[in-house]
Amino acid sequence: MKPTVTFGEIMLRLEPEGYERFVQADKFGVVYGGGEANVAVSLANYGLPAEFVTKLPAHEIGQSAVNALRRYGVGTEKIVRGGERIGIYFIEKGASQRASKVIYDRAYSAVSLAKAEEFDWEAILAGAGWFHFSGITPAVSGELAKACLEAVKTARKLGVTVSCDLNYRSKMWSLDKAKEVMGGLMPYTDVLIANEEHIKSILDIDVSGYAVEDSNLCREGCAAMARILHEKYGFQAAAITQRRSISASDNKFKAAFWQNEETAFSPQHAMHIVDRVGSGDAFTAGILYGMQTGLSAQKTVDFAAAACCLKHSVEGDFNLMSADEVFALAKGEGSGSVQR
Amino acid sequence: MKPTVTFGEIMLRLEPEGYERFVQADKFGVVYGGGEANVAVSLANYGLPAEFVTKLPAHEIGQSAVNALRRYGVGTEKIVRGGERIGIYFIEKGASQRASKVIYDRAYSAVSLAKAEEFDWEAILAGAGWFHFSGITPAVSGELAKACLEAVKTARKLGVTVSCDLNYRSKMWSLDKAKEVMGGLMPYTDVLIANEEHIKSILDIDVSGYAVEDSNLCREGCAAMARILHEKYGFQAAAITQRRSISASDNKFKAAFWQNEETAFSPQHAMHIVDRVGSGDAFTAGILYGMQTGLSAQKTVDFAAAACCLKHSVEGDFNLMSADEVFALAKGEGSGSVQR
Amino acid sequence: MKPTVTFGEIMLRLEPEGYERFVQADKFGVVYGGGEANVAVSLANYGLPAEFVTKLPAHEIGQSAVNALRRYGVGTEKIVRGGERIGIYFIEKGASQRASKVIYDRAYSAVSLAKAEEFDWEAILAGAGWFHFSGITPAVSGELAKACLEAVKTARKLGVTVSCDLNYRSKMWSLDKAKEVMGGLMPYTDVLIANEEHIKSILDIDVSGYAVEDSNLCREGCAAMARILHEKYGFQAAAITQRRSISASDNKFKAAFWQNEETAFSPQHAMHIVDRVGSGDAFTAGILYGMQTGLSAQKTVDFAAAACCLKHSVEGDFNLMSADEVFALAKGEGSGSVQR
Amino acid sequence: MKPTVTFGEIMLRLEPEGYERFVQADKFGVVYGGGEANVAVSLANYGLPAEFVTKLPAHEIGQSAVNALRRYGVGTEKIVRGGERIGIYFIEKGASQRASKVIYDRAYSAVSLAKAEEFDWEAILAGAGWFHFSGITPAVSGELAKACLEAVKTARKLGVTVSCDLNYRSKMWSLDKAKEVMGGLMPYTDVLIANEEHIKSILDIDVSGYAVEDSNLCREGCAAMARILHEKYGFQAAAITQRRSISASDNKFKAAFWQNEETAFSPQHAMHIVDRVGSGDAFTAGILYGMQTGLSAQKTVDFAAAACCLKHSVEGDFNLMSADEVFALAKGEGSGSVQR
Amino acid sequence: MKPTVTFGEIMLRLEPEGYERFVQADKFGVVYGGGEANVAVSLANYGLPAEFVTKLPAHEIGQSAVNALRRYGVGTEKIVRGGERIGIYFIEKGASQRASKVIYDRAYSAVSLAKAEEFDWEAILAGAGWFHFSGITPAVSGELAKACLEAVKTARKLGVTVSCDLNYRSKMWSLDKAKEVMGGLMPYTDVLIANEEHIKSILDIDVSGYAVEDSNLCREGCAAMARILHEKYGFQAAAITQRRSISASDNKFKAAFWQNEETAFSPQHAMHIVDRVGSGDAFTAGILYGMQTGLSAQKTVDFAAAACCLKHSVEGDFNLMSADEVFALAKGEGSGSVQR
Amino acid sequence: MKPTVTFGEIMLRLEPEGYERFVQADKFGVVYGGGEANVAVSLANYGLPAEFVTKLPAHEIGQSAVNALRRYGVGTEKIVRGGERIGIYFIEKGASQRASKVIYDRAYSAVSLAKAEEFDWEAILAGAGWFHFSGITPAVSGELAKACLEAVKTARKLGVTVSCDLNYRSKMWSLDKAKEVMGGLMPYTDVLIANEEHIKSILDIDVSGYAVEDSNLCREGCAAMARILHEKYGFQAAAITQRRSISASDNKFKAAFWQNEETAFSPQHAMHIVDRVGSGDAFTAGILYGMQTGLSAQKTVDFAAAACCLKHSVEGDFNLMSADEVFALAKGEGSGSVQR
Repeated sequence: MKPTVTFGEIMLRLEPEGYERFVQADKFGVVYGGGEANVAVSLANYGLPAEFVTKLPAHEIGQSAVNALRRYGVGTEKIVRGGERIGIYFIEKGASQRASKVIYDRAYSAVSLAKAEEFDWEAILAGAGWFHFSGITPAVSGELAKACLEAVKTARKLGVTVSCDLNYRSKMWSLDKAKEVMGGLMPYTDVLIANEEHIKSILDIDVSGYAVEDSNLCREGCAAMARILHEKYGFQAAAITQRRSISASDNKFKAAFWQNEETAFSPQHAMHIVDRVGSGDAFTAGILYGMQTGLSAQKTVDFAAAACCLKHSVEGDFNLMSADEVFALAKGEGSGSVQR
Repeated sequence: MKPTVTFGEIMLRLEPEGYERFVQADKFGVVYGGGEANVAVSLANYGLPAEFVTKLPAHEIGQSAVNALRRYGVGTEKIVRGGERIGIYFIEKGASQRASKVIYDRAYSAVSLAKAEEFDWEAILAGAGWFHFSGITPAVSGELAKACLEAVKTARKLGVTVSCDLNYRSKMWSLDKAKEVMGGLMPYTDVLIANEEHIKSILDIDVSGYAVEDSNLCREGCAAMARILHEKYGFQAAAITQRRSISASDNKFKAAFWQNEETAFSPQHAMHIVDRVGSGDAFTAGILYGMQTGLSAQKTVDFAAAACCLKHSVEGDFNLMSADEVFALAKGEGSGSVQR
Repeated sequence: MKPTVTFGEIMLRLEPEGYERFVQADKFGVVYGGGEANVAVSLANYGLPAEFVTKLPAHEIGQSAVNALRRYGVGTEKIVRGGERIGIYFIEKGASQRASKVIYDRAYSAVSLAKAEEFDWEAILAGAGWFHFSGITPAVSGELAKACLEAVKTARKLGVTVSCDLNYRSKMWSLDKAKEVMGGLMPYTDVLIANEEHIKSILDIDVSGYAVEDSNLCREGCAAMARILHEKYGFQAAAITQRRSISASDNKFKAAFWQNEETAFSPQHAMHIVDRVGSGDAFTAGILYGMQTGLSAQKTVDFAAAACCLKHSVEGDFNLMSADEVFALAKGEGSGSVQR
Repeated sequence: MKPTVTFGEIMLRLEPEGYERFVQADKFGVVYGGGEANVAVSLANYGLPAEFVTKLPAHEIGQSAVNALRRYGVGTEKIVRGGERIGIYFIEKGASQRASKVIYDRAYSAVSLAKAEEFDWEAILAGAGWFHFSGITPAVSGELAKACLEAVKTARKLGVTVSCDLNYRSKMWSLDKAKEVMGGLMPYTDVLIANEEHIKSILDIDVSGYAVEDSNLCREGCAAMARILHEKYGFQAAAITQRRSISASDNKFKAAFWQNEETAFSPQHAMHIVDRVGSGDAFTAGILYGMQTGLSAQKTVDFAAAACCLKHSVEGDFNLMSADEVFALAKGEGSGSVQR
Repeated sequence: MKPTVTFGEIMLRLEPEGYERFVQADKFGVVYGGGEANVAVSLANYGLPAEFVTKLPAHEIGQSAVNALRRYGVGTEKIVRGGERIGIYFIEKGASQRASKVIYDRAYSAVSLAKAEEFDWEAILAGAGWFHFSGITPAVSGELAKACLEAVKTARKLGVTVSCDLNYRSKMWSLDKAKEVMGGLMPYTDVLIANEEHIKSILDIDVSGYAVEDSNLCREGCAAMARILHEKYGFQAAAITQRRSISASDNKFKAAFWQNEETAFSPQHAMHIVDRVGSGDAFTAGILYGMQTGLSAQKTVDFAAAACCLKHSVEGDFNLMSADEVFALAKGEGSGSVQR
Repeated sequence: MKPTVTFGEIMLRLEPEGYERFVQADKFGVVYGGGEANVAVSLANYGLPAEFVTKLPAHEIGQSAVNALRRYGVGTEKIVRGGERIGIYFIEKGASQRASKVIYDRAYSAVSLAKAEEFDWEAILAGAGWFHFSGITPAVSGELAKACLEAVKTARKLGVTVSCDLNYRSKMWSLDKAKEVMGGLMPYTDVLIANEEHIKSILDIDVSGYAVEDSNLCREGCAAMARILHEKYGFQAAAITQRRSISASDNKFKAAFWQNEETAFSPQHAMHIVDRVGSGDAFTAGILYGMQTGLSAQKTVDFAAAACCLKHSVEGDFNLMSADEVFALAKGEGSGSVQR
């Protein structure tokens, strides 16, 4: 199996213990995470080769981020080392009606100040089978947007499949800027993963004629949306996620996956939440796993939705589940009986 | 805005970690709290000036209680220092069908042994806009009951609004004693906060003709109760709280608020519980916030009920929420989506 | 009251903190537990004399297991000391759809390598009123199976009541072996505790004609099952447990108890889970408590089911509840209101 | 071997983590300890039967103190249960020039409010071989002083050896009161353990003619002091401790022991301190161990001083060392090489 | 007493637990500190009014820094709120030959990007009695250097005494830049605190003719240095610190203080280190305390050196000692006997 | 640089927190370590390629050991997966006169039950430059002894340098057995690392004619010992370590290194101990680093002794120091000044 290369920012995540609020904390839990790094870790956990590309300072905090990736088997040899700081995000875990809160301190990070030319895509993608990035990476800086474009063009040239998790973050850039940049990247993208709202707002897909259930588009709407995306951008596959937030403690999740003219739908999972961060990345990695190992569309979306569901029970950004564990839930074993 | 002065006992709270039982504990979490102190902290968090009055030993454990208040912006200059011990309560967090358990070790605390004359109410209330106490304070000792009476009389004289959270604790005094003492304080009280049961038993309000829903009085019953209270004691406003305990992990809460001949009702909140202690105080502080900032009766009770609801998600006695966060829930944003 | 003697293996239990997965752990919580030890601790908590028999190494880790039992009042004088290692089990707490996972490292433990003759049952059971073991003990080794047989024969001879929790563990022995060994022990057993599935598979009870509700046998099926057991083995009493696993976070539990030709049924409890391990042992101890203190069949099964329910809220293997606390739930006080 | 009975107060000890000051603490470590309880635990650790007598509340915090004793094998059957509170002491660990600080909150504890007649000494001491108390016990209250007097008289009557650790605490009572009460107890005391200063001030022994080394009396002075004590009170043995505090991190300790007209001296130990509390009790228990097992005076004082030394390396009040470990140091193995 | 105003940056300090290295950490202890904030906290602990001026983001991490100051009684009303991030420093505690390591992540902090005009010195210093800053503040940015100059000029105008801790940090600015900026601030400075090396290198004081002991200047050299400083800059007082680092675990410290033509010398303290950070600030605050309360030069330097010594035993940046505790050591009570 | 391959057992290490004794622990710190794994981690930290060979179970605890190695950059691809259990050791940290204590639970581990033929040395050593093992590996089992012999023979054949840390453990095998097995391995060993005592007892080197200082051989004795070893076994280099244990808190260490007819001596380091385990392995890795990077004998022994010294300040088995940090101490920078 050829390795998947993911590209983005990995941050130091600092979190009060348990349900403490920021102003109560006298300890922060320390983990490292970021959308594309999370995808790489999931794939490595499933036994597929994965590498992560970013820029990190040479100091010990930067090294700790590298070590976090190595610990779970992700290749880190292509990470550029240099710069002064690693991006940080503070997260306070919500409960019941109190939402989780994130404070970003990611400006001026090493990767956000990196030049596009620091990433030599010919070398990085040599031998790779898949390239993945999310909409967060080009939002970090103009240079990273440029790097993304070079990466996907190089990937196309080398025959490397490209997937993109659309993931729009309004605090990082404006809708207009996002539409412009992401619009330029879509033609080089083979597989899209996104939620309905971002597909509508960033990619201007109009499915307003379709009914809504559970605050999400109906099945027909999802299928139509995927078809339109395929026609507009030539995607070889597209996954559409549908989340419903009951409270900070309970969420529901389901997804649709379009491939080869067929739309498959996962069951809806109702999750009691341990840690919600990275669950979208877990879904994305599930799609990549299904496609790379040749699962059917139905099995792919079932696997990906199960992976997303299980991530909600795992602390930290990384989805530390094996493929067997995900398959078990995908096949319906969600009763939580003790495994002795 | 003139400061609110609250008066009562603040205790050292000792709590096993997580869901450990007392007999398992080899660490106790350390926080400080008490009904009136909790109200002061809420107000300070909402940006209103607040001061707390009590008596605390001069030693470092007493100082730690002072520091806990200062940390969240509560004025502590009027706290009398002296005596030997701070009251303590041990609390074990319940779960599911196992109830939380409190062991009080508050006898002989500095404030319980204080003399009424140690509190110079003319000086303490000079410049204040509001005075608040709960039914716990006069239950602590005869001297504190006397101090309460002097405080509310002085407040009346100085034009300081007086609020009282009725809060009857059967382990601290008999029903008869409570009726006698609280009965003497009510004529000097402008705003009453209480649950139905205490209103019925301590203030002898008879609303037996009204139907019950959800183990609580119906809306008409609440309105009638408030009207009778107003007629009997001349309260300018009265709030009636209605809690339903599903289990140690899940509670429901709603409230009614009577003001200017009008009764407003909050929606019912269903809370998954992180820490239930102090949620009544959070409600009380919400009422004070609404009244002091001139909210309508409906907005006041919505704010107060939302504050109470959110407190269930916060560790410790203090409700560490900002006014903006409470308003957000009061306006219906309770889905708990991550705030990035 | 004559003491109850229980016999089996007590293990060192190692557990990542909170909901961490094994691969994330840099600390393990340390407790000690095992089916029969758990029963002894429950009885001691209820105020009944209880002793535990096993073999443990003389080193400090073995001593820590002894101390864990002494701490809660269980007699440890008859524990054989020697051998090299204590059995270990690693447990990772599940949540939502992610099941709890147990990794056993119990092979070659001191007790598993003990000879049957190391246990002098005449001496051990002298003065005892009750002997209890579970299906795990004879599964540990052929020598322990032999020791069990000697124990129950000695008990029968000395007039000591014998109870057995059937508890089949497929990883420890085959179904055939279990049927053979347990079949040989049943004739000396006075009281059986088991779930439906094990009764059917190990004791070959056929109740296939009875309907199922909630994935469990109907009431008539349970009653029939108990009757057949009584007829086949002469049990003086039999308890049948019925669990339904909704998820790793939520379970339901109910039970039936047959005694003196009568079958009593507990209500069904729905538990939000803190720690599920040892909840079956808590049920068993509840049955023993009811029988030893002369409760009616109905009160016995209500007490035992309430004990089982409450165990789900207690960390560790041991059910650290008093008889009063269990009675309170058995009588319907499960609302979880704070006990001040 | 007949059991040793010790009598006094056991307290809940609350301690900030590591070197945190009280005002920084948001957790307190929880252990239980008290002079006479500590002696009982040491003896139990050495394999000698030991029982502790006190009064403790029936609630879970009182029970936790009982459990702490049971855990290490101390008999707790004779503890009177009742009253409201357990005595508490807060301790902050010092380092370098910053001294450890203790805040007592022991007034009004169950035992301090107990009546002398709650302790039935005939029953308690029946079958005992030794009775031990310290000067702290009679300082707690007049009733406890009375109980001590009754205890020692009963012991004398029953032929039970009596030891006393003089241990004067100036915050608990005046020098005059201590001299009066302890003076009345000495005639019934067989073995005295004390430091020089307390012997001089409480028992009025004048050894001013002897030289001082290392801030302590010289050897001849110690021998003289013991001789005078013997003559004045008829002690069968007396141990004199000599501590030198270099800093909160480093102390030195040596001792003299007089028995049968002979004075033996321990070597001086220099300790790097983990926890200094209870080290005097460890010494006392060492003396009792030596006398009860028939060691020579030299071996007794060597054992006791080694026990005291080792206690400085153990967290909490209890000296959790085995007799073998103490003997090893007493024989000179203090190099601290890893024991594999 | 008029308040002391200190001005500088307060940072979030993140630290692995115990002696863990950065790459091992999965938790960071969270405290807040910075040279001038530390001085303000010391003064508040000594009972003197103190205020701290800086700029901090309005978000919860910024608020936590404010709360840390309020907790210990420092006035925070004059802190400018705004900007995006708080400066961070990571610190790993060294031991023995392994040095403590600091990684700064303070660039782009709110205060470093603040404009000089955001600080209205006329308003800030109105009513103040003393203004303090260190050489770190002007090193943060050109704007802060400008703000410092405006501050000291305003102080001079308003008759506010100015003290400066020279504290050169080579990673923040060049020697040349430091000489230029600090040189411009010295004429408005009344009291200087510095170590020998910085005095020599930044202020170009030549004492090369004097002997060295213990790697530090001899007494005569110190006195000469102070005299030259006075002559050159007109300082009303000057303190010179002398540290010797034996290892990361052990340091020695002494100091000289010149005032009114007299040079007083402290004894040398040998510290076993708990936390070395902020010990220089503790010294500085000691000098300010001595001068503000009118102690003699000898008592001032003894107090300041004792404060510095004791800080080495306190976790975090803040020196949480009372004036009484410092005086005790200054008077020679450093034996670390337990204070009961 | 060609990779170093090390071969041995890696164990799960379980350790009470701080200075707690085993019987006090309710948490165990979790790290993984073993002599040869420790050497591999050191080399990887120094930037040299390193791989570790062992057998580990496929379950999550086995995987955690793999992850611990990957985290620090050690190659784990050649680890055989299978078997049931990982070896465990419990360690209690000593202090002052109380020695650290280790309880091994390593019998029946996957690697101890592995067959020699499970390790394909031709494949494992293909491309390697160095092979390292210690005397612990052949002591684990006869099969591992056989595997070691095959490994060193294959290494000799392939031109791979072989180093051996003699490390005799009397609890694992007898002196006679060790002499026989190690004697058979020495002829294929190029570089020996050992302490004096083991060289004398296992390799029968007689240097009884040489004087002793500091409980260790004098310089001439070391030089003679190395010369004899070279003559007897043809070692290309030999390192002799000399430790002196002052207490569990303080040790001294120095070493001699013989190469090319020259004996170089390191300075003696005096360490205040954080964690002593693995310090010998740190020394060994230092020798390998020096030899592999071509340092002189003097620089090699200085580097190795400095590495050993620094390990005493690092928690866990692994020496998490960079080559730069070790060089700094080797060059004399051991004052522990804060590195900002």
